[in-house]
Amino acid sequence: MQLLTLGSVAFDAIETPFGKSDKIVGGAGTYISLAASFFNKNQALISVVGEDFPSEVLSAMANRGIDIRGIQIPEGGKTFFWAGKYHNDMNSRDTLVTELNVLGTFDPVVPSEYKNAPFLMLGNLSPDVQRKVVEQMDSRPKLIAMDTMNFWMDVALKELHKTLRLVDLLIVNDEEARQLTGEYALKTAARRIMDLGPRLVIIKKGEHGALLFSMDEVFYAPALPLEEVFDPTGAGDTFAGGLMGYLSTQQELTFNTLKRGVIAGSALASFCVEKFGTQRLEKLTQIELDERINEFYTLSKFELA
Amino acid sequence: MQLLTLGSVAFDAIETPFGKSDKIVGGAGTYISLAASFFNKNQALISVVGEDFPSEVLSAMANRGIDIRGIQIPEGGKTFFWAGKYHNDMNSRDTLVTELNVLGTFDPVVPSEYKNAPFLMLGNLSPDVQRKVVEQMDSRPKLIAMDTMNFWMDVALKELHKTLRLVDLLIVNDEEARQLTGEYALKTAARRIMDLGPRLVIIKKGEHGALLFSMDEVFYAPALPLEEVFDPTGAGDTFAGGLMGYLSTQQELTFNTLKRGVIAGSALASFCVEKFGTQRLEKLTQIELDERINEFYTLSKFELA
Repeated sequence: MQLLTLGSVAFDAIETPFGKSDKIVGGAGTYISLAASFFNKNQALISVVGEDFPSEVLSAMANRGIDIRGIQIPEGGKTFFWAGKYHNDMNSRDTLVTELNVLGTFDPVVPSEYKNAPFLMLGNLSPDVQRKVVEQMDSRPKLIAMDTMNFWMDVALKELHKTLRLVDLLIVNDEEARQLTGEYALKTAARRIMDLGPRLVIIKKGEHGALLFSMDEVFYAPALPLEEVFDPTGAGDTFAGGLMGYLSTQQELTFNTLKRGVIAGSALASFCVEKFGTQRLEKLTQIELDERINEFYTLSKFELA
Repeated sequence: MQLLTLGSVAFDAIETPFGKSDKIVGGAGTYISLAASFFNKNQALISVVGEDFPSEVLSAMANRGIDIRGIQIPEGGKTFFWAGKYHNDMNSRDTLVTELNVLGTFDPVVPSEYKNAPFLMLGNLSPDVQRKVVEQMDSRPKLIAMDTMNFWMDVALKELHKTLRLVDLLIVNDEEARQLTGEYALKTAARRIMDLGPRLVIIKKGEHGALLFSMDEVFYAPALPLEEVFDPTGAGDTFAGGLMGYLSTQQELTFNTLKRGVIAGSALASFCVEKFGTQRLEKLTQIELDERINEFYTLSKFELA
């Protein structure tokens, strides 16, 4: 087991200026593991779904090399449901419905086969649940990455700080980095986050790319100027999944390796937004992905003379 | 004469969250020619100032290799004055005072020595005034670049379209590109702008870098994640000046040359915002500039494997 992911598996109902989806399968864990599967076929997902969750979706995950033995299905439970509506500029959204259901009482259990995974990705969930997974590991993973969101800063900041102390890499967006640190300048915000524990920070800026910070280096990953963003749902999770999927296949975690991981994540995220939910990623071929990674290379490459 | 610039020379009074400037020298023409002087010592500025304008500032320009014979000083005239106040996030500002003064009746005259300049930069001014300069050229410049702003789209759109048809490169920010074309996606907006005349488009995104578009290529120039932006005034003009200063020294205008020009402009703009007005640029050394250009290179460079 190279990569272990903790993340929600959910039903989403999405409305964008371009249309409305049915109740489709979403959730951070879904996007992360799907994206990671383009690089790594040796991964596992820890999550929880209700009895209403279609078993063929779980089988499809298994077929992609995602070990699903860590997905709990509590008796009589209902799957987490989220409905949201994006505004015209696609940069903000309103949550219309949140039904926690089985996620409300989720107590993650790490199967013993996963307890020595060298790469651990903590998808956005309560910091308590995230920490419970870290604490069940038998050996300290080579890299623990986590995502979080404003909500946890509002309602569980102390718990969030406790979990942050255990991780190597925090992946947040610009707004979250600013709220977490009270710093507007992202470079300063990244340094404050490092004071809280992580030695690596990625700040996602949506259509403006992403910044990767280590203690002494910075990398600015561009975003592809897209003609159209159809549905941004899951783009951040897809980014994290691509990144961790790529990294978990690498021997050495140099800054150069991390840069390539950020590009891998960015490329996958740029596909994710082209259709509703996971539709585009499910049809994505390795050749298309390689071509897009090349596009990112061309996009930002220049020679000094 | 390699580079001819049209642009205002003004007095500015600036207020930012960090402090307040006295009445200092500003204006698009000032920033453009100052920035260009780091690459090209063979340039001229067409502008207008009042009799109240300090002659030692004009001498300092001349000492930097800026030919100032095209700067008119109408008798009894007063210099254009602008006062503005930046909001806390530095991304928006209120104009407190605009006194057009000599700029209100400015009729640009291109001295015959400048009429064969191969590079022409039209700083932000009324599209009519911009066009008058183009029409006075004896030979078609190799590259005509122009800046503009929302104001002219509101009050002189037809004139703006007429001028756009004459230029090769339009340099605008994201908001301006969107207003000019009615397109939200910047890639689409760039294509619409090309339909209006320019074969090259640069869309500046402030702290998010800049995009360079040709008919069939795109380049994403990163922005340096700065700890602090002290005063954004003149950053856009400094960008344009650095770009055109660099380009005007190059034999061939390939897409690679244009990329390097965008980086040169970005590097200079990143210095500009460090202090009030032109203060930082005036003290900037060639070594500091070279180092920063190198920083940009490191910032966005990655290898595919």
